[in-house]
Amino acid sequence: MKIVLIAGSNRKNATSTLLLKHMEDVFRSKNVETTFVDLYDKPVPLYCPDDETPDERASFMIRAVEEADAIVLGTPEYHGSISGVLKNALDYLGSNEVGGKAVLSVSSSGGAVGVSSLTQLQAIVRNLHGINSPEWLSLGGSARQFGADGSPTDAGVRQRVVRVIDALTDLTSKLRPAARVPQK
Amino acid sequence: MKIVLIAGSNRKNATSTLLLKHMEDVFRSKNVETTFVDLYDKPVPLYCPDDETPDERASFMIRAVEEADAIVLGTPEYHGSISGVLKNALDYLGSNEVGGKAVLSVSSSGGAVGVSSLTQLQAIVRNLHGINSPEWLSLGGSARQFGADGSPTDAGVRQRVVRVIDALTDLTSKLRPAARVPQK
Amino acid sequence: MKIVLIAGSNRKNATSTLLLKHMEDVFRSKNVETTFVDLYDKPVPLYCPDDETPDERASFMIRAVEEADAIVLGTPEYHGSISGVLKNALDYLGSNEVGGKAVLSVSSSGGAVGVSSLTQLQAIVRNLHGINSPEWLSLGGSARQFGADGSPTDAGVRQRVVRVIDALTDLTSKLRPAARVPQK
Amino acid sequence: MKIVLIAGSNRKNATSTLLLKHMEDVFRSKNVETTFVDLYDKPVPLYCPDDETPDERASFMIRAVEEADAIVLGTPEYHGSISGVLKNALDYLGSNEVGGKAVLSVSSSGGAVGVSSLTQLQAIVRNLHGINSPEWLSLGGSARQFGADGSPTDAGVRQRVVRVIDALTDLTSKLRPAARVPQK
Repeated sequence: MKIVLIAGSNRKNATSTLLLKHMEDVFRSKNVETTFVDLYDKPVPLYCPDDETPDERASFMIRAVEEADAIVLGTPEYHGSISGVLKNALDYLGSNEVGGKAVLSVSSSGGAVGVSSLTQLQAIVRNLHGINSPEWLSLGGSARQFGADGSPTDAGVRQRVVRVIDALTDLTSKLRPAARVPQK
Repeated sequence: MKIVLIAGSNRKNATSTLLLKHMEDVFRSKNVETTFVDLYDKPVPLYCPDDETPDERASFMIRAVEEADAIVLGTPEYHGSISGVLKNALDYLGSNEVGGKAVLSVSSSGGAVGVSSLTQLQAIVRNLHGINSPEWLSLGGSARQFGADGSPTDAGVRQRVVRVIDALTDLTSKLRPAARVPQK
Repeated sequence: MKIVLIAGSNRKNATSTLLLKHMEDVFRSKNVETTFVDLYDKPVPLYCPDDETPDERASFMIRAVEEADAIVLGTPEYHGSISGVLKNALDYLGSNEVGGKAVLSVSSSGGAVGVSSLTQLQAIVRNLHGINSPEWLSLGGSARQFGADGSPTDAGVRQRVVRVIDALTDLTSKLRPAARVPQK
Repeated sequence: MKIVLIAGSNRKNATSTLLLKHMEDVFRSKNVETTFVDLYDKPVPLYCPDDETPDERASFMIRAVEEADAIVLGTPEYHGSISGVLKNALDYLGSNEVGGKAVLSVSSSGGAVGVSSLTQLQAIVRNLHGINSPEWLSLGGSARQFGADGSPTDAGVRQRVVRVIDALTDLTSKLRPAARVPQK
């Protein structure tokens, strides 16, 4: 099983990106292969429908999504919605790459939990013909602390991460039986 | 009365931008001052919350919104949502610039009418504490033809444009009595 | 100024209804006239588009909204949305009664704050051509305690109530100058 | 494979109900078992969280959903949202009955296609932990004609119905391999 994680923040040490990095660790501990697309480290340019050939970074992202069995999308919540940086990246994708795949939506918000961005994100995923995982994850306010090893300091958050990851890999195994990870 | 129009496409001759240019003509014919922010001609860079000072183009847009009495947002519909290019531009703004002002949402979509992007856009506007005009405008499919003078070729579309513009200026006059345009 | 408050719960002592009753007290203390429509005490029957004449209770509600200068809608959050009981009541209304009026959306939720129901409610209000107040109110979890006098026990909640009510009466005064309440 | 179809209109000969009845015919022609819950013929009472035991009709619906492998929800679009009658019925359900099951959302609207109600419905389904089918179906305006045999008169609509049904049974077979229908 191969998962692509797209981190949609454009801020250094963004909590949504830290959360996705921790999730990558958990996936790997479960023998799931991962590709990490960090839109801060390697931003993709503003999407222009007139351009026939996407640039190198956008191409890398498109290929990573195409090759993945499932997708994790992480975003800060700006104005009750996903970041423009993430939406811009998603504008490069289509149902060719996303269609039929399990998608997990994750947000991090300075205020209360970022349900508004997750709802908008799931509407976008449906439009791309992805299969939204009904389990999602939103960290708000003080739940957004990470230790030196990259794990959330709050035990409840760590458990919730495991739960949404298990739900995603379970859904992915059903949608793509060939991608099932052999149990150790 | 001063209106800022933000055209959220990054495509040459985008129909959502043509529509906003036509709307600008109609506003001017009604003695309303306008500022046009074209995110294709003058793209604003990817928003980064770490940057304390926005670049020149972003600053121009922020100031234009700040000085306006009302706002028109135009977007293509990508994946049932607004363009990443528009969302990225909105990420620079806050309730300081948008709060309490009338906002008109406009979309153009290759398929049927783009209600999904308008709904998401109004949720974003509310978050910025703008006052959403209940009249909005979405052009779908074949309604998106424009003549040599920049007007929509369809008479029904032209009438609808006048109606949403009148609704916006009426709402703006109520919210900001000092901005009222003297009747000729 | 005349406000109608519609309490969309069908539960005895629902916190969303207690909140609306407290809001009614605050409105009255500001010399604003109120009508209270409690869908628990006086439920309206399931809406049937074939019926030409609504029953007595539905007629009362329709008339109350028609005569009001502004509207407060209160709902519990069920499954990330407003109660069926409230949606059913709104199905009797049209832009004749709601159009152009300021509308305040309020929710109460057992879990975290009920942003999902408020977002859906504002999309419904826009469809009815109401003017959504960008200030809304959602009580979650432990914020939902009320004292013997009907006031929220949490001081922050009481202040927030005053703030959203002031925002609503201010918006209503602008949209309907004739409805302005004389300052004492 | 067993599918429950819930028709959320409260109007005689509602097009959303006619569409669901046609879908039931198509399911049966594919050897899929069906249960039809018609909220017009057999309305469920207004949901009251204080009642510990739902009435007979609500109990029938709850059991039908519980026993189904997948769910089809049909609704008219009222005010950009699902009918109060359908929302009220959904308020009786929980993730016990809906969780992990494939759900197809279908709407019928007098105006253009009813995307706004479908988006809200999918947000509700996610909250119930159902798996939204990314293929949905919305009939608008003149597409809503049915022949004497109950089929849509428009060939494109009939094909679209087959497509969304195939997508649903395919998704259901993946989520619940035991429910797979043997190929003839």
